[in-house]
Amino acid sequence: MTRVFNFSAGPAALPEPVLRQAAQEMLDWQGCGMSVMEMSHQGKEFTSIHAEALALLRELLNVPANYHVLFMQGGAIAENAIVPMNMLRGHRSADYIDTGEWSKRSIQEARRYGDVNVAASSADSGYTAIPDAKTWQLDPQAAYVHICSNETINGVEYHDTPDVADVPLVADMSSNILSRPVDVSKFGLIYAGAQKNIGPAGLTIVIVREDLLGKALPCTPTAFDYQVVAEHGSMYNTPPTYAIYMAGLVFRWLKDQGGLAAIAARNRAKAELLYGAIDASEFYSNSVNPTCRSWMNVPFKLKDASLDEAFLQGAQAEGLVQLKGHRVLGGMRASIYNAMPLEGVQALVSYLKAFERRFG
Amino acid sequence: MTRVFNFSAGPAALPEPVLRQAAQEMLDWQGCGMSVMEMSHQGKEFTSIHAEALALLRELLNVPANYHVLFMQGGAIAENAIVPMNMLRGHRSADYIDTGEWSKRSIQEARRYGDVNVAASSADSGYTAIPDAKTWQLDPQAAYVHICSNETINGVEYHDTPDVADVPLVADMSSNILSRPVDVSKFGLIYAGAQKNIGPAGLTIVIVREDLLGKALPCTPTAFDYQVVAEHGSMYNTPPTYAIYMAGLVFRWLKDQGGLAAIAARNRAKAELLYGAIDASEFYSNSVNPTCRSWMNVPFKLKDASLDEAFLQGAQAEGLVQLKGHRVLGGMRASIYNAMPLEGVQALVSYLKAFERRFG
Repeated sequence: MTRVFNFSAGPAALPEPVLRQAAQEMLDWQGCGMSVMEMSHQGKEFTSIHAEALALLRELLNVPANYHVLFMQGGAIAENAIVPMNMLRGHRSADYIDTGEWSKRSIQEARRYGDVNVAASSADSGYTAIPDAKTWQLDPQAAYVHICSNETINGVEYHDTPDVADVPLVADMSSNILSRPVDVSKFGLIYAGAQKNIGPAGLTIVIVREDLLGKALPCTPTAFDYQVVAEHGSMYNTPPTYAIYMAGLVFRWLKDQGGLAAIAARNRAKAELLYGAIDASEFYSNSVNPTCRSWMNVPFKLKDASLDEAFLQGAQAEGLVQLKGHRVLGGMRASIYNAMPLEGVQALVSYLKAFERRFG
Repeated sequence: MTRVFNFSAGPAALPEPVLRQAAQEMLDWQGCGMSVMEMSHQGKEFTSIHAEALALLRELLNVPANYHVLFMQGGAIAENAIVPMNMLRGHRSADYIDTGEWSKRSIQEARRYGDVNVAASSADSGYTAIPDAKTWQLDPQAAYVHICSNETINGVEYHDTPDVADVPLVADMSSNILSRPVDVSKFGLIYAGAQKNIGPAGLTIVIVREDLLGKALPCTPTAFDYQVVAEHGSMYNTPPTYAIYMAGLVFRWLKDQGGLAAIAARNRAKAELLYGAIDASEFYSNSVNPTCRSWMNVPFKLKDASLDEAFLQGAQAEGLVQLKGHRVLGGMRASIYNAMPLEGVQALVSYLKAFERRFG
């Protein structure tokens, strides 16, 4: 068996020790004679797994006591509807900050449930920057302000949490949750699909301040009403049990790595190494403003797009896979989430240099 | 490692060879150097896994060409809302047949989206029978007729598909899908949570006739609009990739067992053995009308409920687990889905007799 360095944007690489443990426990979890997949979600074995995953996540993110942590389904794309359904709370409109492909999709879906005020946009720059928060045209009556804290496709990330006064801040953190410390108390709602920094696809994390619950639109499916999900401890419908188990293993691994401060230092070092190599070259380029370059997703282009295919094939031969960029931008993209070791980024940087020497 | 016989109602036992293969492939799927969990859902590896699972499911159920097979999320409880959102199609109301706890919940949720006509109910009998289809008060203008083909809690199952003329028949098949052959062409829509006969929780199967698509209510989240999901080949949002992989392994196992006719014969034999033992005894009882007893879920009671705890502890000691009945009915329940081998039912029947000899 040879493991590759997997730069997929999501579903994405998982820590190898986590996969090893999952393989070992597949037929028999801790001597109970069952796979985690086979357990009743209401039995004592699974409820202990669920409770531990929840406790670890709360600990890692230091979630205040007045926030619920929910395990749901449907990913961030379903949340694009579920968020306005739950969070409009009788308000006429919500503010959205448009910083790339994912916020654009959030805006489109939210418009089906209420008025959307695009309070700021970096579309004119080709989504290579985050508009200065001082210029945002916020509506003090808005139900909430929505941001995408890391744009997976465009490679743009908020490095600070914006101040939006008393209006609840809502963040799609799908692609940078748990990559660095964050002050949860500054948010009304955080949501994230699991398949980038947490675990398998099919699990959605929702962290929501309790006073915002209970005002879902009448058309909200009961299974997606945050209040109902909170009241049932994420067991209103059968939860994605195996994905929760895997997420719990990842949370434990993260804690063993030293928690979010330690992983943030590693993520920063990985990102600086890769951006440094790109910037030092005339052959590769990344057009994102250095103040908001993502530590998680690094899109870059070769000087000559006709070399893209050769670049990808050569990378594959070196065990560096899933580097093809998203079709919206073309070029390449290296996603370097928590589970990507420094060695993977070092190997990629070596390959960048070798490819440039040969074709540059 | 000692594997138990797991009678959980869901999530439920999976075939051991499937779990073994999953464990073996956990870190490296077919030499690609990645876990299935780590693959981009749009990469060539996962799209081949997805396509194979889809093809096997279509083959097993002999799904006609004019039906879409969708892989979704949220389980049957989310579908309780998603079905009326998609299937009311401008009609004023839908017909529901009330045969137990699950149809009751489907009815409650559907009422949030339109008028529900309960065309027949077995509530008066304590849900121990299915009302004769000749007595159903069907509305020829209804959007659809909804049935729950197997009531997991009450242990009541349709052994034939009812004839509802030209109105589309919609079935929640969560707990008996793939347990026997079924003529899909008699249905407008079939849906099922995966966690009983298919694979891990977090995957929902939807099989829908193509002419019924495209008329979802305006408030339907785009990720749950069957037409959109169909157009995107179940990739509108990131699908639950690992659950789809596991389902594909189960589908292949089912095909290797001889397909649905063969598994139906085994399921019938298992059910007859267990009901036979219950009926032969004065100590155990099942109150469901023999014409509609479920082959999948067998609720039963001990003569003296004060012995329940001793019964469960003794069973656990014999490696017979998750036999506790649903809180609505109390007593016991043995769920004997496809993955439960005959040996498991034989072991349970032996235990029933031994317990009765000791305490009866």
